[in-house]
Amino acid sequence: MSHNHTIHRHCHHFTWDNSIEPVYSVEPGKSLNFEVTDSSAGQLNSKSVKEDVAGLDFERVNPVNGPVYVNGAQPGDTLEVEIEGFGPQSWGWTAVIPGFGLLHEQFQDPYLKIWDLKKGKAEFLSGIEIPIAPFPGTIGVALPEKGAYSVVPPRKNGGNMDIRHLTRGTKLYLPVWTEGALFSVGDTHAAQGDGEVCGTAIEAPMDIQLRFKLHKGKQISEPQFETPGPLNPGPESKGYFATTGYGEDLMTATKKAVTYMIEHLVMKYGLSDVEAYALCSVAVDLKLSEVVDVPHYLVSAYLPLNIFK
Amino acid sequence: MSHNHTIHRHCHHFTWDNSIEPVYSVEPGKSLNFEVTDSSAGQLNSKSVKEDVAGLDFERVNPVNGPVYVNGAQPGDTLEVEIEGFGPQSWGWTAVIPGFGLLHEQFQDPYLKIWDLKKGKAEFLSGIEIPIAPFPGTIGVALPEKGAYSVVPPRKNGGNMDIRHLTRGTKLYLPVWTEGALFSVGDTHAAQGDGEVCGTAIEAPMDIQLRFKLHKGKQISEPQFETPGPLNPGPESKGYFATTGYGEDLMTATKKAVTYMIEHLVMKYGLSDVEAYALCSVAVDLKLSEVVDVPHYLVSAYLPLNIFK
Repeated sequence: MSHNHTIHRHCHHFTWDNSIEPVYSVEPGKSLNFEVTDSSAGQLNSKSVKEDVAGLDFERVNPVNGPVYVNGAQPGDTLEVEIEGFGPQSWGWTAVIPGFGLLHEQFQDPYLKIWDLKKGKAEFLSGIEIPIAPFPGTIGVALPEKGAYSVVPPRKNGGNMDIRHLTRGTKLYLPVWTEGALFSVGDTHAAQGDGEVCGTAIEAPMDIQLRFKLHKGKQISEPQFETPGPLNPGPESKGYFATTGYGEDLMTATKKAVTYMIEHLVMKYGLSDVEAYALCSVAVDLKLSEVVDVPHYLVSAYLPLNIFK
Repeated sequence: MSHNHTIHRHCHHFTWDNSIEPVYSVEPGKSLNFEVTDSSAGQLNSKSVKEDVAGLDFERVNPVNGPVYVNGAQPGDTLEVEIEGFGPQSWGWTAVIPGFGLLHEQFQDPYLKIWDLKKGKAEFLSGIEIPIAPFPGTIGVALPEKGAYSVVPPRKNGGNMDIRHLTRGTKLYLPVWTEGALFSVGDTHAAQGDGEVCGTAIEAPMDIQLRFKLHKGKQISEPQFETPGPLNPGPESKGYFATTGYGEDLMTATKKAVTYMIEHLVMKYGLSDVEAYALCSVAVDLKLSEVVDVPHYLVSAYLPLNIFK
């Protein structure tokens, strides 16, 4: 894997704003390396404790490296970003941040897990190991509208989509909204379940190599991607345990399915409530089982049993 | 595989009603065979045409075989139902039924696809083949409340959950709400994507063998299950194409992701809109990519590329 240039960690920004000056211009066909810092922008480190979570400055979270100007990109084009690979990861963190996360009403106290990733594996607790499957949580382009938009919610420009299958070999397609596209990436995760329910994954600084390609005149409304699979990291031979929740709206169903999974993890594996919640965030996948059997929809939460050694 | 008794196709009912007399009593540990009719209860057959869809009598859809009284089952227990296997399938149907389905506002005309399943495969159109992975769409027990409840929506008794991973080898756990549990099963599907977006799967009559076990005094709030995996039928070597939709609510995000997938299938493979919608229902999986990055959530629709030959 060879890249043409590195976008260093200090070249980052905290909002989507198409007036931010590009830090680099890239020719379609070329590959770039991005030195991505963690989503706390260095406010947390491998020695941090849970009290540090409460002190996080939210004006400085979720930095993205860039923006990169893609030569020739015009509104109405599609930018293809191939995820070529990731550098090594040495540490990561998973936090419950008060006021944030699917079950923030129930989980009001800060929690922090520091992960040692140096050996290429991620031990949650003794006997529980999460397969490492790195991807960028936040990846996107500038919006067409003037002004500064928070990087926290995803939008038609991509952004903080937290799609855990943007793994190596994936081609992400982003609609281009401004001249040069103004591409940025950040928020790298070493692993995450579909949903990212506690609000954080295994947040880990790492390098990421990306190759850019332009599809002139191909318009899409929101991001799309093609991923080589398999979709589930690690062997599936141990199967899955799943909880279900029904509801008249999908959010109710989702919260119930996750709550039942937390209860199961506490009862069966002796985790604390907040440990179970964090484990769901890094390893449990949320699926929409049915969205048509009115007036009740069903969401299922899948726990891969290969994490238990 | 040996079973102790068959619950024949005429032993079915159309509502969850704990006053319906059991058709059979089973001892925990025993296995039963259920002759399941299709979810139209025989109103459609392998010669039906789309005009027949408009004439469906909704008082007679989604029959379930049973109820079976499980000896010793009491409220507060959990009934384990192991899915031991399925009989052969000869035909199936997938319909767009006016007024029903995720995108019923856009798809107002009836559509019907009849599948020939006799060769153990399911061809949608020339060159598009859906891997067969049978499961019961509707499986559950009686509710504690008196009266007749529609079998269409899933509830705390299970029912029409349409969980596509209730495949062979799965153990489903159902909360027991009434004496004897009063178990029923129906609505067998030869294949379906997570979401069942057009409202129907490959609806196919088939036998299903189930073994019952009782967990005395183990209380759960809603159904849970353990499935052996792999979760995705067929080889994953061709990867997946996915669309994404963000929204301030999950239903908006879901509808967008499916709409973009339909557009993709029409543009890339030359399907008609309604063919693409039906193909999504039988083969495309909906995932909750993130449910925390307020105020926008993200749903992704995954198309397995192994269906294209």
